[in-house]
Amino acid sequence: MIVTLLTDFGTSDSYVAEVKGVLLSLAAGAQVVDITHDIPPGDVRAAAFVLSRAWPRFPRGTVHLAVVDPGVGTARRAIAAEAGGHQFVAPDNGLLASLPADAEYVAIKISAAAAPTFHGRDVFAPVAAALARGARLADVGAPITAPQFTAPTIQRGQDGVVIGEVVYVDTFGTLITNMPGDAIKGKARIVVGQHDAGILRRTFGDVKRGQLVAFVGSGGTIEIAARDGSAAILTNLGVGATVRIEPA
Amino acid sequence: MIVTLLTDFGTSDSYVAEVKGVLLSLAAGAQVVDITHDIPPGDVRAAAFVLSRAWPRFPRGTVHLAVVDPGVGTARRAIAAEAGGHQFVAPDNGLLASLPADAEYVAIKISAAAAPTFHGRDVFAPVAAALARGARLADVGAPITAPQFTAPTIQRGQDGVVIGEVVYVDTFGTLITNMPGDAIKGKARIVVGQHDAGILRRTFGDVKRGQLVAFVGSGGTIEIAARDGSAAILTNLGVGATVRIEPA
Amino acid sequence: MIVTLLTDFGTSDSYVAEVKGVLLSLAAGAQVVDITHDIPPGDVRAAAFVLSRAWPRFPRGTVHLAVVDPGVGTARRAIAAEAGGHQFVAPDNGLLASLPADAEYVAIKISAAAAPTFHGRDVFAPVAAALARGARLADVGAPITAPQFTAPTIQRGQDGVVIGEVVYVDTFGTLITNMPGDAIKGKARIVVGQHDAGILRRTFGDVKRGQLVAFVGSGGTIEIAARDGSAAILTNLGVGATVRIEPA
Repeated sequence: MIVTLLTDFGTSDSYVAEVKGVLLSLAAGAQVVDITHDIPPGDVRAAAFVLSRAWPRFPRGTVHLAVVDPGVGTARRAIAAEAGGHQFVAPDNGLLASLPADAEYVAIKISAAAAPTFHGRDVFAPVAAALARGARLADVGAPITAPQFTAPTIQRGQDGVVIGEVVYVDTFGTLITNMPGDAIKGKARIVVGQHDAGILRRTFGDVKRGQLVAFVGSGGTIEIAARDGSAAILTNLGVGATVRIEPA
Repeated sequence: MIVTLLTDFGTSDSYVAEVKGVLLSLAAGAQVVDITHDIPPGDVRAAAFVLSRAWPRFPRGTVHLAVVDPGVGTARRAIAAEAGGHQFVAPDNGLLASLPADAEYVAIKISAAAAPTFHGRDVFAPVAAALARGARLADVGAPITAPQFTAPTIQRGQDGVVIGEVVYVDTFGTLITNMPGDAIKGKARIVVGQHDAGILRRTFGDVKRGQLVAFVGSGGTIEIAARDGSAAILTNLGVGATVRIEPA
Repeated sequence: MIVTLLTDFGTSDSYVAEVKGVLLSLAAGAQVVDITHDIPPGDVRAAAFVLSRAWPRFPRGTVHLAVVDPGVGTARRAIAAEAGGHQFVAPDNGLLASLPADAEYVAIKISAAAAPTFHGRDVFAPVAAALARGARLADVGAPITAPQFTAPTIQRGQDGVVIGEVVYVDTFGTLITNMPGDAIKGKARIVVGQHDAGILRRTFGDVKRGQLVAFVGSGGTIEIAARDGSAAILTNLGVGATVRIEPA
C-alpha cells in the first residue's frame, strides 16, 4: 500500500516526519512517497496542479494525502475522495480539482481531539492511514456532493481565438497552460501575454537558443518554454497570465 | 524495521545516499525515512529540537540515526541509546537531549577502520543497521551514564513571572519556546523580547492579520507566530530570545 | 529490489513523483531511494561524480536510474548498463563515466511512444522498472561497445609534479579532486590554483580555523577544505581548477 504526500511544509522542520511517523504507526508497512513539500505556502492552485500531474501515474490502490491549507485554524471541512481506484485525503479547498467527474467524496469525521492539534498529523494522516489499511470512504465520513472546486476555464473568443491561462510555472521557468493540445485547430500561433511564441513545435530543437517555444507538454497541455533559458524570466509572466491561440 | 535519518548534509551531494546505501546493504529491507537533512550545518540545538518533535511519532522499534557533528575530525565519542522502545545512534554532543530520563546509553565500539572515513557512513550507519537487524545496545558498546546534555531550562522570576526562551524557529518564522502550555496559570500575557504577544489564544483566527499570536503549538509548548506573516521577521528575534509569561 | 534516482528535476514540481509513480506501477514493491534531484540543471559532470560516489555503496542487484539530459529533445541515445552486480539506466552522455572497465552496455530499445513524452517518465523509468523486475540487459536493448565517456585525467609534469583538477564542489564548499590519495609519494604540498593547501593532513583538527586543509576524502581522492569555512569561497575556485601535487 502506497501513500503519497503533498504539502507546503518544507523539508527543514519536523512536520513532514511527524506525519510520516503517524502514518507508519497506524499503517505498518505503508510505502510513503513524497510528491513534494515545496508548494509555495498556502498556494492551493499550485498544489492542485502538481497533484493533478502526479496522482494518475501511481498504481490503483494508492492513497494520496495532500495538505496545503491556508484556512488552518478557521472553520473548513476536511474531505476524503475516491476516483479511478485511487483514494484522496485533503482539506476541502479546491486541492482535489483534478479528480474526474465521477469521483465520490465524503466529509471526514473529526473525532474530538485534545487540543493543540496539527491537522496534517492529527486529522489527515490518521484518515489516510485508515484508507491505506483498507477502510472504505463510508468508514471515514458521510457523503457530500459539492466539494470546493475552482479550475480555470478556457474561453473561445472572436475569429476562432481560444483564450486560456498559465496555471503553473515549473522550476525551469516553463509556463504551463490549461489548454489541451487539441485546442489548436489548423495552423495557429500561441501568444502569452504580449509575447508571440510562434506555432506549436515538436521539440526544443526547432527554435534557436533563448527563443520562446510552444509545445504540448508531458501533461498534455500547451507549455511555453525558452530554449536553454527560463520563459518566466524572459517574459516576466507567471500564473494567471493570459494565453491566446490565434489562427495564423 | 524503520530507520529514520536526521543530518545536516543537505540533499545536493552524495552523502545522504552513501549512508542509505550502507544501511540497505547491511540491513536489507529496512525502510529508511528522512526526518530532514537541512539542519543548519553544525547546529546541534536545532537538530536536537527537530529530533525531539519527530521521534515520538514513529512506531516502537524504530531506529533513529542522527548525525550533526561539528566535532567531526576531533576526539569525541559516538553513542547509541534506547528509550521507550526506540533506539538511537548519534554523536555524543547533546543531540539526544530529548530522550526521557530512563533512557539507556552505550558508547559505540568503533572498529579500527581504514582511513579515510566518513563517520556518518562508516561508523554511525553500520551501528544503526545492526540495531535495525535486532542487535541490542549491549552488542554495540559498553554502558555509559553521562551523555552530553544541554537543554535550556525554565526559570521562575519575581511576581509570578516565568522565563523561558525561543529554542527553534521553523520555516514559517514561528518562534517555538521551551515553555509547556501549563506553565501559564490563570490570565497572563506572553512577551517575547520586547514584543507583547498578548494572552494565549486558541487559534490564528483570534487575531488580526500581521499581529503576533501566542498559542500552545502541536509539540505542546508555547509558540509565537504572526498571522499570515513571519514572527521571526516581525520581531527580528530568533533562537535564544527571552520569553516571559507575565501575570495580567 | 532497490531503484535509486538521480536527476536535475528539483523537488518542487511533479516530475520526480511522476517517475516514481511509473516505477511503482510497473515494478510493484520496488524500494525507490533518492540519490539527489538537485544536480545543477544539465550538469552531466556533477551528476556523474555524485553517481560515482553513491552507487558502489548500495547492495548488488540495485538498479540506478540517472536522468540529467541537456540533450533532451534532440537526437541522442539512451543506454542501460551492468557492472559489479548493479544495473544502470541513463542517457548516453557520460553520466555513467564511473563504471568499471568491464561494464556491459546496451542501447535502449525505445518503443514508438505517443507524443508528447517526458523521457524520464516515459522512456527511462519503464526500462528501470523492467530491470528491477528481473529483466536482463539483453532484454532491453542491443549491445554497444562505445558509450560516451569523458573523465578528467591526471597528468605528470616535470620535477615529479602531478597535475589534476577539481571535479566537484560539495554543499560545504569542499573542493573535491580527481587525484587518488596514493598520487602523493613522499612529502609534498597540494596547490589548488594559486593557493597552497600545505601537506596532506589526517584531519581538520590539524589546521587553524579558516585555513585550507588537504586530506584524502571519504571517496578516496584528495579534497581541499577550509576548517570551519568554505574552500570554494576562500579560494574563489570551482570545478575545473588546476590542482598540483608538488614535491616539498
